[in-house]
Amino acid sequence: MNVKIITISREFGSGGHSIGKSVAKKLGWKYYDQELVNKISEESSFAKEFIETRGEYATTKSDLLYSLFENFGATTGSQSINDKLYITQVNIIKEIAQGEPCVIVGRCANFILRNRDDVLNVFIHADTDFKSKRIVELYGETKDDPEKRLKDKDGKRAVYYKYYTGEKWGIITNYDLSFNSGKIGIEKCSDIIVSTIKSK
Amino acid sequence: MNVKIITISREFGSGGHSIGKSVAKKLGWKYYDQELVNKISEESSFAKEFIETRGEYATTKSDLLYSLFENFGATTGSQSINDKLYITQVNIIKEIAQGEPCVIVGRCANFILRNRDDVLNVFIHADTDFKSKRIVELYGETKDDPEKRLKDKDGKRAVYYKYYTGEKWGIITNYDLSFNSGKIGIEKCSDIIVSTIKSK
Repeated sequence: MNVKIITISREFGSGGHSIGKSVAKKLGWKYYDQELVNKISEESSFAKEFIETRGEYATTKSDLLYSLFENFGATTGSQSINDKLYITQVNIIKEIAQGEPCVIVGRCANFILRNRDDVLNVFIHADTDFKSKRIVELYGETKDDPEKRLKDKDGKRAVYYKYYTGEKWGIITNYDLSFNSGKIGIEKCSDIIVSTIKSK
Repeated sequence: MNVKIITISREFGSGGHSIGKSVAKKLGWKYYDQELVNKISEESSFAKEFIETRGEYATTKSDLLYSLFENFGATTGSQSINDKLYITQVNIIKEIAQGEPCVIVGRCANFILRNRDDVLNVFIHADTDFKSKRIVELYGETKDDPEKRLKDKDGKRAVYYKYYTGEKWGIITNYDLSFNSGKIGIEKCSDIIVSTIKSK
Protein backbone atom coordinates (compact mmCIF):
# COMPACT_ATOMS: atom_id res chain seq x y z
CA MET A 1 0.00 0.00 0.00
CA ASN A 2 1.50 3.27 -1.12
CA VAL A 3 -0.75 5.80 0.58
CA LYS A 4 -0.81 9.34 -0.69
CA ILE A 5 -4.22 10.47 0.55
CA ILE A 6 -5.68 10.26 4.06
CA THR A 7 -9.39 10.92 4.45
CA ILE A 8 -10.69 11.72 7.92
CA SER A 9 -14.37 11.29 8.76
CA ARG A 10 -15.34 12.43 12.23
CA GLU A 11 -18.09 12.89 14.73
CA PHE A 12 -18.61 16.54 15.70
CA GLY A 13 -16.37 17.40 18.65
CA SER A 14 -14.19 14.27 18.39
CA GLY A 15 -11.08 16.17 17.29
CA GLY A 16 -10.97 15.03 13.66
CA HIS A 17 -9.93 18.50 12.52
CA SER A 18 -7.05 18.68 15.04
CA ILE A 19 -5.92 15.14 14.27
CA GLY A 20 -5.98 15.77 10.50
CA LYS A 21 -4.05 19.02 10.85
CA SER A 22 -1.46 17.41 13.12
CA VAL A 23 -1.00 14.45 10.75
CA ALA A 24 -0.57 16.75 7.73
CA LYS A 25 1.98 18.86 9.61
CA LYS A 26 4.04 15.85 10.74
CA LEU A 27 4.04 14.34 7.24
CA GLY A 28 4.54 17.66 5.45
CA TRP A 29 1.37 16.96 3.42
CA LYS A 30 -1.28 19.40 2.24
CA TYR A 31 -4.33 19.75 4.47
CA TYR A 32 -7.88 20.27 3.26
CA ASP A 33 -10.66 21.23 5.64
CA GLN A 34 -11.44 24.96 5.52
CA GLU A 35 -8.89 24.99 2.66
CA LEU A 36 -11.28 22.79 0.68
CA VAL A 37 -14.14 25.24 1.25
CA ASN A 38 -11.91 28.06 -0.02
CA LYS A 39 -10.91 26.08 -3.10
CA ILE A 40 -14.50 25.11 -3.94
CA SER A 41 -15.57 28.74 -3.55
CA GLU A 42 -12.73 29.99 -5.77
CA GLU A 43 -13.50 27.49 -8.52
CA SER A 44 -17.29 27.85 -8.46
CA SER A 45 -19.97 30.45 -7.91
CA PHE A 46 -20.79 29.15 -4.39
CA ALA A 47 -20.26 31.41 -1.38
CA LYS A 48 -18.06 30.04 1.42
CA GLU A 49 -20.90 30.19 3.92
CA PHE A 50 -23.17 28.18 1.62
CA ILE A 51 -20.45 25.54 1.13
CA GLU A 52 -19.86 25.34 4.88
CA THR A 53 -23.52 24.88 5.75
CA ARG A 54 -24.70 22.85 2.77
CA GLY A 55 -21.65 20.97 1.47
CA GLU A 56 -21.64 18.37 4.21
CA TYR A 57 -24.94 18.68 6.05
CA ALA A 58 -28.58 18.32 5.27
CA THR A 59 -30.09 21.52 6.67
CA THR A 60 -33.09 19.39 7.62
CA LYS A 61 -34.22 15.97 6.52
CA SER A 62 -36.93 17.54 4.38
CA ASP A 63 -34.33 19.76 2.72
CA LEU A 64 -32.75 16.82 0.91
CA LEU A 65 -36.14 15.26 0.40
CA TYR A 66 -37.14 18.41 -1.44
CA SER A 67 -33.96 18.06 -3.45
CA LEU A 68 -35.03 14.51 -4.29
CA PHE A 69 -38.36 15.73 -5.67
CA GLU A 70 -36.61 18.43 -7.67
CA ASN A 71 -34.54 15.67 -9.21
CA PHE A 72 -37.50 14.11 -10.95
CA GLY A 73 -36.48 16.69 -13.53
CA ALA A 74 -32.90 15.37 -13.63
CA THR A 75 -33.31 13.60 -16.95
CA THR A 76 -34.10 16.93 -18.52
CA GLY A 77 -30.84 18.29 -17.20
CA SER A 78 -32.11 20.15 -14.14
CA GLN A 79 -30.25 19.78 -10.81
CA SER A 80 -30.96 21.09 -7.35
CA ILE A 81 -28.45 23.57 -5.96
CA ASN A 82 -27.44 20.95 -3.35
CA ASP A 83 -26.64 18.49 -6.12
CA LYS A 84 -24.67 21.10 -8.04
CA LEU A 85 -22.58 21.78 -4.94
CA TYR A 86 -22.05 18.04 -4.36
CA ILE A 87 -20.93 17.48 -7.96
CA THR A 88 -18.55 20.45 -7.72
CA GLN A 89 -17.09 18.99 -4.51
CA VAL A 90 -16.68 15.56 -6.11
CA ASN A 91 -14.77 17.04 -9.03
CA ILE A 92 -12.52 19.17 -6.83
CA ILE A 93 -11.76 16.32 -4.41
CA LYS A 94 -10.86 14.07 -7.36
CA GLU A 95 -8.66 16.83 -8.79
CA ILE A 96 -6.90 17.37 -5.43
CA ALA A 97 -6.28 13.62 -5.19
CA GLN A 98 -4.35 13.76 -8.48
CA GLY A 99 -1.92 16.24 -6.96
CA GLU A 100 0.40 16.26 -3.94
CA PRO A 101 -0.11 13.92 -0.97
CA CYS A 102 -2.81 15.32 1.30
CA VAL A 103 -5.20 14.91 4.22
CA ILE A 104 -8.89 15.61 3.47
CA VAL A 105 -11.40 16.06 6.29
CA GLY A 106 -15.08 15.20 5.77
CA ARG A 107 -17.21 15.82 2.66
CA CYS A 108 -17.69 12.13 1.79
CA ALA A 109 -14.05 11.99 0.56
CA ASN A 110 -13.70 8.32 1.57
CA PHE A 111 -16.65 7.47 -0.70
CA ILE A 112 -15.62 9.81 -3.53
CA LEU A 113 -12.12 8.27 -3.68
CA ARG A 114 -13.26 4.67 -3.06
CA ASN A 115 -11.87 3.35 -6.34
CA ARG A 116 -8.29 4.46 -5.64
CA ASP A 117 -5.89 2.12 -3.86
CA ASP A 118 -3.63 4.80 -2.39
CA VAL A 119 -6.11 6.12 0.18
CA LEU A 120 -6.16 5.48 3.95
CA ASN A 121 -9.63 6.05 5.39
CA VAL A 122 -9.86 7.06 9.06
CA PHE A 123 -12.90 7.56 11.30
CA ILE A 124 -12.75 9.46 14.61
CA HIS A 125 -15.42 9.16 17.29
CA ALA A 126 -15.62 9.73 21.04
CA ASP A 127 -17.95 9.55 24.01
CA THR A 128 -20.61 12.21 24.40
CA ASP A 129 -18.99 13.71 27.54
CA PHE A 130 -15.64 14.18 25.82
CA LYS A 131 -17.21 15.75 22.73
CA SER A 132 -19.58 17.96 24.74
CA LYS A 133 -16.76 19.42 26.82
CA ARG A 134 -14.67 19.96 23.71
CA ILE A 135 -17.29 21.84 21.66
CA VAL A 136 -18.03 24.18 24.57
CA GLU A 137 -14.29 24.90 24.97
CA LEU A 138 -13.80 25.43 21.24
CA TYR A 139 -17.03 27.10 20.13
CA GLY A 140 -18.56 28.36 23.39
CA GLU A 141 -22.03 27.91 24.82
CA THR A 142 -25.19 28.31 22.71
CA LYS A 143 -28.89 28.24 23.59
CA ASP A 144 -28.89 24.48 22.92
CA ASP A 145 -27.23 22.08 25.31
CA PRO A 146 -24.03 20.42 23.97
CA GLU A 147 -25.63 16.99 23.65
CA LYS A 148 -28.36 18.38 21.39
CA ARG A 149 -25.74 20.21 19.29
CA LEU A 150 -23.76 16.98 18.79
CA LYS A 151 -26.85 15.03 17.86
CA ASP A 152 -28.08 17.68 15.42
CA LYS A 153 -24.78 18.09 13.61
CA ASP A 154 -23.95 14.39 13.30
CA GLY A 155 -27.57 13.66 12.34
CA LYS A 156 -27.32 16.11 9.46
CA ARG A 157 -23.96 14.67 8.39
CA ALA A 158 -25.46 11.17 8.40
CA VAL A 159 -28.47 12.24 6.31
CA TYR A 160 -26.20 14.02 3.82
CA TYR A 161 -23.85 11.03 3.57
CA LYS A 162 -26.70 8.57 3.07
CA TYR A 163 -28.36 10.78 0.47
CA TYR A 164 -25.25 11.22 -1.69
CA THR A 165 -23.47 7.89 -1.21
CA GLY A 166 -26.40 5.53 -0.62
CA GLU A 167 -24.52 4.18 2.41
CA LYS A 168 -24.88 4.54 6.13
CA TRP A 169 -22.36 6.91 7.71
CA GLY A 170 -19.79 5.37 10.07
CA ILE A 171 -19.88 1.70 9.01
CA ILE A 172 -16.76 0.13 10.56
CA THR A 173 -15.70 -1.76 7.41
CA ASN A 174 -15.58 1.47 5.37
CA TYR A 175 -12.54 2.67 7.36
CA ASP A 176 -8.99 1.31 7.57
CA LEU A 177 -8.47 2.77 11.02
CA SER A 178 -10.92 4.08 13.58
CA PHE A 179 -10.31 5.69 16.96
CA ASN A 180 -12.13 6.62 20.11
CA SER A 181 -10.16 9.85 20.45
CA GLY A 182 -11.39 10.44 24.01
CA LYS A 183 -9.82 7.18 25.10
CA ILE A 184 -6.75 7.02 22.85
CA GLY A 185 -5.90 10.74 23.02
CA ILE A 186 -5.84 13.21 20.12
CA GLU A 187 -2.04 13.37 19.84
CA LYS A 188 -1.73 9.58 20.01
CA CYS A 189 -4.33 9.16 17.21
CA SER A 190 -2.23 11.47 15.07
CA ASP A 191 1.00 9.58 15.94
CA ILE A 192 -0.59 6.23 15.02
CA ILE A 193 -1.77 7.50 11.63
CA VAL A 194 1.67 8.95 10.87
CA SER A 195 3.43 5.77 11.96
CA THR A 196 1.07 3.69 9.80
CA ILE A 197 1.90 5.81 6.74
CA LYS A 198 5.64 5.66 7.47
CA SER A 199 5.60 1.90 7.93
CA LYS A 200 4.31 1.42 4.40
CA MET B 1 -6.70 5.35 31.14
CA ASN B 2 -4.99 2.50 32.91
CA VAL B 3 -5.74 -0.44 30.63
CA LYS B 4 -5.38 -3.96 31.96
CA ILE B 5 -7.68 -5.82 29.60
CA ILE B 6 -7.76 -5.81 25.80
CA THR B 7 -10.78 -7.37 24.09
CA ILE B 8 -10.47 -8.30 20.43
CA SER B 9 -13.56 -8.77 18.29
CA ARG B 10 -12.86 -9.95 14.77
CA GLU B 11 -14.29 -10.96 11.47
CA PHE B 12 -13.49 -14.56 10.56
CA GLY B 13 -10.18 -14.69 8.67
CA SER B 14 -9.12 -11.14 9.56
CA GLY B 15 -6.25 -12.24 11.80
CA GLY B 16 -7.78 -11.29 15.16
CA HIS B 17 -6.39 -14.44 16.78
CA SER B 18 -2.84 -13.77 15.51
CA ILE B 19 -3.00 -10.09 16.46
CA GLY B 20 -4.28 -10.89 19.97
CA LYS B 21 -1.60 -13.54 20.49
CA SER B 22 1.15 -11.23 19.27
CA VAL B 23 -0.05 -8.36 21.51
CA ALA B 24 -0.19 -10.61 24.58
CA LYS B 25 3.31 -11.92 23.86
CA LYS B 26 4.81 -8.44 23.43
CA LEU B 27 3.14 -7.15 26.62
CA GLY B 28 3.78 -10.32 28.62
CA TRP B 29 0.01 -10.55 29.31
CA LYS B 30 -2.19 -13.63 29.54
CA TYR B 31 -4.00 -14.63 26.36
CA TYR B 32 -7.49 -16.09 26.22
CA ASP B 33 -8.88 -17.60 23.03
CA GLN B 34 -8.67 -21.41 23.03
CA GLU B 35 -7.43 -20.92 26.62
CA LEU B 36 -10.84 -19.51 27.48
CA VAL B 37 -12.58 -22.57 26.02
CA ASN B 38 -10.34 -24.79 28.15
CA LYS B 39 -11.06 -22.77 31.30
CA ILE B 40 -14.83 -22.80 30.71
CA SER B 41 -14.72 -26.53 30.13
CA GLU B 42 -12.68 -27.14 33.31
CA GLU B 43 -15.02 -25.05 35.44
CA SER B 44 -18.30 -26.37 34.03
CA SER B 45 -19.83 -29.52 32.64
CA PHE B 46 -19.61 -28.31 29.04
CA ALA B 47 -17.46 -30.20 26.54
CA LYS B 48 -14.82 -28.18 24.66
CA GLU B 49 -16.40 -28.93 21.30
CA PHE B 50 -19.79 -27.68 22.52
CA ILE B 51 -18.21 -24.46 23.84
CA GLU B 52 -16.34 -23.95 20.56
CA THR B 53 -19.41 -24.38 18.40
CA ARG B 54 -22.09 -22.85 20.63
CA GLY B 55 -20.31 -20.33 22.87
CA GLU B 56 -19.96 -17.67 20.21
CA TYR B 57 -22.14 -18.70 17.32
CA ALA B 58 -25.78 -19.32 16.68
CA THR B 59 -25.82 -22.72 14.97
CA THR B 60 -28.71 -21.38 12.92
CA LYS B 61 -30.98 -18.40 13.37
CA SER B 62 -33.79 -20.70 14.44
CA ASP B 63 -31.51 -22.28 17.06
CA LEU B 64 -31.48 -19.13 19.17
CA LEU B 65 -35.09 -18.46 18.34
CA TYR B 66 -35.89 -21.85 19.85
CA SER B 67 -33.86 -20.83 22.87
CA LEU B 68 -36.01 -17.69 23.10
CA PHE B 69 -39.19 -19.77 23.23
CA GLU B 70 -37.68 -22.04 25.86
CA ASN B 71 -37.09 -18.92 27.94
CA PHE B 72 -40.76 -18.27 28.37
CA GLY B 73 -40.16 -20.64 31.27
CA ALA B 74 -37.32 -18.51 32.63
CA THR B 75 -39.35 -17.10 35.52
CA THR B 76 -39.79 -20.61 36.81
CA GLY B 77 -36.02 -21.03 36.79
CA SER B 78 -35.58 -22.97 33.55
CA GLN B 79 -32.81 -21.95 31.14
CA SER B 80 -31.83 -23.21 27.70
CA ILE B 81 -28.46 -24.92 27.42
CA ASN B 82 -27.27 -22.00 25.25
CA ASP B 83 -28.19 -19.55 27.99
CA LYS B 84 -26.45 -21.68 30.63
CA LEU B 85 -23.27 -21.65 28.54
CA TYR B 86 -23.53 -17.87 28.01
CA ILE B 87 -23.99 -17.23 31.73
CA THR B 88 -21.01 -19.49 32.52
CA GLN B 89 -18.91 -17.55 30.00
CA VAL B 90 -19.99 -14.21 31.47
CA ASN B 91 -18.97 -15.31 34.96
CA ILE B 92 -15.61 -16.69 33.83
CA ILE B 93 -14.78 -13.62 31.72
CA LYS B 94 -15.61 -11.36 34.69
CA GLU B 95 -13.47 -13.56 36.95
CA ILE B 96 -10.53 -13.47 34.52
CA ALA B 97 -10.84 -9.67 34.33
CA GLN B 98 -10.29 -9.50 38.11
CA GLY B 99 -6.92 -11.21 37.71
CA GLU B 100 -3.75 -10.50 35.75
CA PRO B 101 -3.71 -8.20 32.70
CA CYS B 102 -4.93 -10.11 29.66
CA VAL B 103 -6.10 -10.18 26.05
CA ILE B 104 -9.49 -11.82 25.43
CA VAL B 105 -10.61 -12.76 21.90
CA GLY B 106 -14.31 -12.88 21.00
CA ARG B 107 -17.20 -14.17 23.14
CA CYS B 108 -18.89 -10.75 23.60
CA ALA B 109 -16.11 -9.78 26.05
CA ASN B 110 -16.34 -6.10 25.09
CA PHE B 111 -20.02 -6.13 26.07
CA ILE B 112 -19.55 -8.27 29.18
CA LEU B 113 -16.85 -5.91 30.53
CA ARG B 114 -18.55 -2.67 29.36
CA ASN B 115 -18.84 -1.22 32.87
CA ARG B 116 -15.11 -1.35 33.58
CA ASP B 117 -12.91 1.62 32.70
CA ASP B 118 -9.67 -0.35 32.28
CA VAL B 119 -10.59 -2.12 29.04
CA LEU B 120 -9.43 -1.32 25.49
CA ASN B 121 -11.87 -2.69 22.92
CA VAL B 122 -10.48 -3.53 19.46
CA PHE B 123 -12.24 -4.68 16.29
CA ILE B 124 -10.41 -6.31 13.36
CA HIS B 125 -11.91 -6.56 9.88
CA ALA B 126 -10.55 -6.98 6.36
CA ASP B 127 -11.59 -7.24 2.72
CA THR B 128 -13.17 -10.46 1.53
CA ASP B 129 -10.20 -11.34 -0.74
CA PHE B 130 -7.72 -11.04 2.12
CA LYS B 131 -9.87 -13.11 4.49
CA SER B 132 -10.70 -15.75 1.86
CA LYS B 133 -7.04 -16.33 1.03
CA ARG B 134 -6.18 -16.49 4.71
CA ILE B 135 -8.79 -19.06 5.73
CA VAL B 136 -7.80 -21.36 2.88
CA GLU B 137 -4.13 -21.09 3.91
CA LEU B 138 -4.92 -21.67 7.60
CA TYR B 139 -7.80 -24.14 7.52
CA GLY B 140 -7.64 -25.60 4.00
CA GLU B 141 -10.35 -25.96 1.38
CA THR B 142 -13.85 -27.25 2.18
CA LYS B 143 -16.86 -28.06 0.01
CA ASP B 144 -18.05 -24.46 0.45
CA ASP B 145 -16.29 -21.62 -1.28
CA PRO B 146 -14.34 -19.28 1.06
CA GLU B 147 -16.75 -16.37 0.60
CA LYS B 148 -19.67 -18.51 1.78
CA ARG B 149 -17.64 -19.73 4.78
CA LEU B 150 -16.84 -16.14 5.82
CA LYS B 151 -20.45 -15.06 5.45
CA ASP B 152 -21.78 -18.07 7.40
CA LYS B 153 -19.38 -17.72 10.32
CA ASP B 154 -19.70 -13.96 10.73
CA GLY B 155 -23.46 -14.19 10.26
CA LYS B 156 -23.69 -16.66 13.15
CA ARG B 157 -21.43 -14.47 15.30
CA ALA B 158 -23.66 -11.47 14.58
CA VAL B 159 -26.85 -13.37 15.47
CA TYR B 160 -25.28 -14.65 18.70
CA TYR B 161 -24.02 -11.17 19.65
CA LYS B 162 -27.37 -9.53 18.94
CA TYR B 163 -29.25 -12.21 20.87
CA TYR B 164 -27.15 -11.98 24.03
CA THR B 165 -26.20 -8.28 24.06
CA GLY B 166 -29.22 -6.70 22.34
CA GLU B 167 -26.77 -4.77 20.16
CA LYS B 168 -25.64 -5.01 16.57
CA TRP B 169 -22.21 -6.62 16.15
CA GLY B 170 -19.44 -4.35 14.81
CA ILE B 171 -20.82 -0.88 15.58
CA ILE B 172 -17.84 1.49 15.21
CA THR B 173 -18.52 3.43 18.43
CA ASN B 174 -18.35 0.24 20.51
CA TYR B 175 -14.60 -0.06 19.86
CA ASP B 176 -11.69 2.16 20.88
CA LEU B 177 -9.59 1.06 17.94
CA SER B 178 -10.51 -0.71 14.74
CA PHE B 179 -8.33 -1.91 11.91
CA ASN B 180 -8.56 -3.14 8.35
CA SER B 181 -5.85 -5.75 8.91
CA GLY B 182 -5.51 -6.45 5.19
CA LYS B 183 -4.52 -2.85 4.57
CA ILE B 184 -2.64 -2.02 7.81
CA GLY B 185 -0.88 -5.40 8.13
CA ILE B 186 -1.26 -7.91 10.96
CA GLU B 187 2.08 -7.12 12.62
CA LYS B 188 1.47 -3.37 12.39
CA CYS B 189 -1.99 -3.75 14.03
CA SER B 190 -0.31 -5.57 16.90
CA ASP B 191 2.41 -2.88 17.17
CA ILE B 192 -0.19 -0.09 17.28
CA ILE B 193 -2.17 -1.78 20.06
CA VAL B 194 1.00 -2.35 22.12
CA SER B 195 2.18 1.21 21.58
CA THR B 196 -1.27 2.52 22.63
CA ILE B 197 -1.10 0.54 25.87
CA LYS B 198 2.46 1.66 26.55
CA SER B 199 1.65 5.31 25.94
CA LYS B 200 -0.90 5.29 28.74
